Amino acid sequence: MAEERMTFELSKEYLESLQEAFEAGNAAFIRETMDGVNPADISALLDEVDSDTAKFVIDTLNDTIGAEIIEDLEEDTRSKFLEKFEAPELADYITEMESDDAVDVINELPVRKREEVISHIKDPEAASHIMELMRYDEDCAGGLMAKEMIVANINWTVVQTIEEIRRQRENVDKIYSVYVVDDQNKLRGKVSVKKIILASDRTFVKDIFDEEVISVETYMDEEEVADIMQKYDLDAVPVVNLQGKLVGRITIDDVVDVITEQAEEDMQLMAGISSDVEEDDSVWAISKARLPWLLIGLLGGMLGAWAIGFFENDLKENAALALFIPLVMATGGNVGIQSSTLVVQSLANKSAFSETFGKRLSKMFLVAILSSLVLGLFSFLLVYVINGDQQMGLVVAVALQGVVLLASFMGTTTPIVLDKFGINPALASGPFITTTNDILGIIVYLAVANLLL
Amino acid sequence: MAEERMTFELSKEYLESLQEAFEAGNAAFIRETMDGVNPADISALLDEVDSDTAKFVIDTLNDTIGAEIIEDLEEDTRSKFLEKFEAPELADYITEMESDDAVDVINELPVRKREEVISHIKDPEAASHIMELMRYDEDCAGGLMAKEMIVANINWTVVQTIEEIRRQRENVDKIYSVYVVDDQNKLRGKVSVKKIILASDRTFVKDIFDEEVISVETYMDEEEVADIMQKYDLDAVPVVNLQGKLVGRITIDDVVDVITEQAEEDMQLMAGISSDVEEDDSVWAISKARLPWLLIGLLGGMLGAWAIGFFENDLKENAALALFIPLVMATGGNVGIQSSTLVVQSLANKSAFSETFGKRLSKMFLVAILSSLVLGLFSFLLVYVINGDQQMGLVVAVALQGVVLLASFMGTTTPIVLDKFGINPALASGPFITTTNDILGIIVYLAVANLLL
Repeated sequence: MAEERMTFELSKEYLESLQEAFEAGNAAFIRETMDGVNPADISALLDEVDSDTAKFVIDTLNDTIGAEIIEDLEEDTRSKFLEKFEAPELADYITEMESDDAVDVINELPVRKREEVISHIKDPEAASHIMELMRYDEDCAGGLMAKEMIVANINWTVVQTIEEIRRQRENVDKIYSVYVVDDQNKLRGKVSVKKIILASDRTFVKDIFDEEVISVETYMDEEEVADIMQKYDLDAVPVVNLQGKLVGRITIDDVVDVITEQAEEDMQLMAGISSDVEEDDSVWAISKARLPWLLIGLLGGMLGAWAIGFFENDLKENAALALFIPLVMATGGNVGIQSSTLVVQSLANKSAFSETFGKRLSKMFLVAILSSLVLGLFSFLLVYVINGDQQMGLVVAVALQGVVLLASFMGTTTPIVLDKFGINPALASGPFITTTNDILGIIVYLAVANLLL
Repeated sequence: MAEERMTFELSKEYLESLQEAFEAGNAAFIRETMDGVNPADISALLDEVDSDTAKFVIDTLNDTIGAEIIEDLEEDTRSKFLEKFEAPELADYITEMESDDAVDVINELPVRKREEVISHIKDPEAASHIMELMRYDEDCAGGLMAKEMIVANINWTVVQTIEEIRRQRENVDKIYSVYVVDDQNKLRGKVSVKKIILASDRTFVKDIFDEEVISVETYMDEEEVADIMQKYDLDAVPVVNLQGKLVGRITIDDVVDVITEQAEEDMQLMAGISSDVEEDDSVWAISKARLPWLLIGLLGGMLGAWAIGFFENDLKENAALALFIPLVMATGGNVGIQSSTLVVQSLANKSAFSETFGKRLSKMFLVAILSSLVLGLFSFLLVYVINGDQQMGLVVAVALQGVVLLASFMGTTTPIVLDKFGINPALASGPFITTTNDILGIIVYLAVANLLL
């Protein structure tokens, strides 16, 4: 509904009326104005109000809508907000959620309250699903999956399968495919909803199901799950345990969130921000995430000062040497970031046959040679033309070529090495590599000057 | 099929056997070994072989599989590869594709060959769909959508809708929802496949459809489409034209690609790589994408040299001043990148009420003050302890505080200004802002030294 979205984007005034309605305890206003509005829009709105007002809105609307709103709230808003609810209230909302979302919400509660909430869930099946899912690590397939799905026994007929869909119609929001299992609950295949619609009632599942189903195992890393779903264009993927038994299903919306979060995390690593913060977090949270790398950069700068110290006599004799320290440093930094970013991206899109370490290095070397020639030539001309100093031009050009080669090498190998040790290679495009390249660049430059001047 | 994927990841030997099979014209080998393998895996394999071998494999397999393989090939491989096919052959494969994928492939052909291929498409409906979609810009909803979808008239019964599904069963791979239109083809709502399965045959569509359908307009930017589908957890979204008539459908798999590409593009901008290159592109392509920013960085470095030149006398008197140039520069760069990355990410996740310019600036100012105090203190201590020079410690500390404030300001405002002018704000985290901060940092540092020493 394009219209409704518009209304909500423009409604700072609405926010004020909402505040007034809360203060006056005017539930009717909320019921009227929020009728038919998408819960995701209400969540976006409630992210902007205080927890008491948000609770008043959610209490006013029905449990199903309330549950959807709670699911969609931002994590920071939500954790503050969940404190306002008593365990029995929360249990009611959680019962309305799909099991994966329910677990996400429960995991934000203090350990003691978790137990309390679970004990208040009236539906024993829902409670057991939640407890099962809580066992899995958040970052693996088990932590992404939901228990809600349509499962058909291979010996059923289509009409039995439709009966199962009817039984589960409140629980399973989107069907995608029906998963087919044998009597041991082992995953045998899937049937598309299209085939079910088109099949006659007495057709057997075993006659129409598709044996070639791609599945993932509970312990698979979430990023690997995302890669598989993206590669094979899947909108849902069944999850099996070590015995091949069907235990859950991951849907594409969860994987889209994984992809987005991963991209944000990589970008923050590149920028030297150490934990997951956003611009609207507190001044303190932002500073805490930023200071560690700044301090490490400071130490790097001190190392740089120490390195320059070795050449202090050269600098005293020839103060013009200092002029080109920034140029050499910046070029080294830029080359290093470029190299590491390309490697990071190619590590992320690992193809069936990714380039070997040797091939990578030799290509990196060719690119570095080409760049160093161009940059060397330009820097010589610039220094010669602008400063009129041919010898200094030569020093800068030679130093720059060395720095480009060195920075390319560091930028290419660091992410590969980090990846081998299981560390996110995006870290290599961050302040760490920049600082290292800065120091190496300075040493190369001053050493070249020391030799040539 | 976890097993099959494994085989393909490990099969460098298979690649060799494939090459031999091609040279011997052994089609049987290909048919046998590729039976039941997912086309996406075959594509990944063919990305590694030469175009003639790839064509041999595709010719050997049937048209439906061939079409899927062509869809999944990487763009660079594909464009070289498409040259090998005559127009009538290509037309056959394209007829097997969904219309959006067909247009993507056709758009990679030279203009003349496009016409020729379209004229060879035997199915007139497919040809007209393709010609209609070619009118839209690639980066908007019209360029993402496909014509394949299930559309039901509001006055139909469920059995008529099922007949339509049967008629389209070869064309529409995944149904998601059935879109409901009136006699003027205006979008009125949707019905989930679940409801269709559960409804009795004589139920009317108008009695079970859901009026609240979120749709997008043909001209909407692809990133906005991605935001909407992500916000509302949609797996497909109908596309309407200006008259509200239903013209197509966008599915989540296309949007996942948009999200991934966008993240990669942002990261490359941050790293100062100017066009969409990958590590396995040619040495020349990679160098061409990298050199522009390196050269701009070089010019920035020259500006830095020119700025330092103003203080050459100070440097002559006190060569120790040069020691801390890298420290000041690096800190300025790090602070600038951190600030701009946070702003870029919050611009990307625009919430209903994003923070105002004033609020952003004041928060940025508080974080900057806090960071500058901490960094100032630490740098003073480090310089004092290591160099034993109290006055130099003061200069560095004061300069650093100024640089942190300035870099925060630049880092915060640059992306906002770029965004206002419709330029991708991620550019602000790239070499441009770093270079600017470097120069400003040097000037502040040397000016402070000039005043205090």
